[in-house]
Amino acid sequence: METTLRSTKETVVIGPDRPLVIIGERINPTGRKKLAKALEDGNLKLVQEEASKQVQEGAHVLDVNVGVSGIDEPKLLKEAILAVREVTEVPLCIDSALPRALEAGLQVYKGKALVNSVNGEERKLKEVLPVVKQYGAAVIGLTMDDDGIPKDAPKRLQIARKIVEEAQKIGIPPEDVIIDPLAMAISTDHTAALETLKAFRLIRDELGVNQTMGASNISFGLPERHPINGIFLAMAAIHGVTCPILDPTVWEIRRSILITDLLLAKDEYCMNFISVYRDKFPKE
Amino acid sequence: METTLRSTKETVVIGPDRPLVIIGERINPTGRKKLAKALEDGNLKLVQEEASKQVQEGAHVLDVNVGVSGIDEPKLLKEAILAVREVTEVPLCIDSALPRALEAGLQVYKGKALVNSVNGEERKLKEVLPVVKQYGAAVIGLTMDDDGIPKDAPKRLQIARKIVEEAQKIGIPPEDVIIDPLAMAISTDHTAALETLKAFRLIRDELGVNQTMGASNISFGLPERHPINGIFLAMAAIHGVTCPILDPTVWEIRRSILITDLLLAKDEYCMNFISVYRDKFPKE
Repeated sequence: METTLRSTKETVVIGPDRPLVIIGERINPTGRKKLAKALEDGNLKLVQEEASKQVQEGAHVLDVNVGVSGIDEPKLLKEAILAVREVTEVPLCIDSALPRALEAGLQVYKGKALVNSVNGEERKLKEVLPVVKQYGAAVIGLTMDDDGIPKDAPKRLQIARKIVEEAQKIGIPPEDVIIDPLAMAISTDHTAALETLKAFRLIRDELGVNQTMGASNISFGLPERHPINGIFLAMAAIHGVTCPILDPTVWEIRRSILITDLLLAKDEYCMNFISVYRDKFPKE
Repeated sequence: METTLRSTKETVVIGPDRPLVIIGERINPTGRKKLAKALEDGNLKLVQEEASKQVQEGAHVLDVNVGVSGIDEPKLLKEAILAVREVTEVPLCIDSALPRALEAGLQVYKGKALVNSVNGEERKLKEVLPVVKQYGAAVIGLTMDDDGIPKDAPKRLQIARKIVEEAQKIGIPPEDVIIDPLAMAISTDHTAALETLKAFRLIRDELGVNQTMGASNISFGLPERHPINGIFLAMAAIHGVTCPILDPTVWEIRRSILITDLLLAKDEYCMNFISVYRDKFPKE
């Protein structure tokens, strides 16, 4: 199954037989004081810098989240989307916990956006899916519901199935639903990564939809986080993740994506890997 | 299926539900001038140093290969095994292209060794398997035969099956055959890694035997070799490799093994990963 995202000038196709699609995560104030402060001040210059930098470092799609307290999020999200559009043409992933903000973002977005996110909660499904449908967008569905995030893979599949079905009921096709099975930290439960890999595989085999994941949760609380995240990304790709959300400006992480494509025969003659490497390290 | 290797004092069990077993590769003069020179001189001090260092860095089994030209290999291999035994008690993998040398090594080895290697060639099967049987050892079977190394996975399975069957005919049980499907360089064929992963999976699913691999061939001719090898190791583990042959003194490679066990829920409470990390980087 392939998901197509578009801006007015660029198209990105996400699918199991294609190279991994990188969704850049850096335009998000969570845990990033400098960006949070800039957003509070309504200053979008840093957002633009983060956009350019991530595209430069290989992001194919950019997540845009401006959720800081005390601001008019729908208004700021609109402005941020327009500001990002001034510096890059890549398709965007419009990210907010507020359905009103998602709708505001979609109003100014030209093309087919990705919406981040809906989940299995009744209220969320009811609030978000009609907006996604109205603007012809695609949507990320998180495998959590009114009972929280299930630990075991079959239950995550069940929620994923519900999201896909509810979307279909109002006319959003399965290829426009990208599931995120929510990788949890292994430091608190050493079976968390394995169970998430099982969820990726189950969801791929049963539903055939594209899948995303946040690349960094898994290593929370441990040393050597980038190497852990990088190896988990490779394992995730084998099990069905096609468009991870990550920070491509960290070479160790971007390199994992390039190497994963390389090893899974998605980089003919190793051309992409070698050319990125040469751009990055021209003197070696 | 589980393979048990033994010295007089230590036992190592290799199996799919256990942490990965590291076979240290450094006692091998191929491409290592200093070691080759020492072996030509009959000086085994460097061999002992390499043995200690690898065990210190997490090797569970040590490969011992003394194949340099112009020496009496059976005699030197015996001496090397005895020299290694002076500094460590881990089980050994006796490695030579000469069946006579393998036999000489087995004569002095106390316990259950691993023999490296047999392959699908008629002559090799006939020369090596009886020696393995006679000394009650386990053996690595390379998936190549008189026609060379097949490119496609089903043919590698076919050779693996033949080796397992020939071994069984003379009384070596399948659990004492460890298959190496021979990972080739992706720089010359960008599908090589994917095809090898398929071979790992096929051999695991069809034969259920343990599998090994050399961790470094795959990246030959490319930059960023350790990261490529490290990610391939993780992918290989998912597909059936249980006891890779590698250089544990390279932290990036050893770390991949630790992280792979961690992510596949084989490191309860992340204890092994964290304790190795703390030993390695006590100040951080």
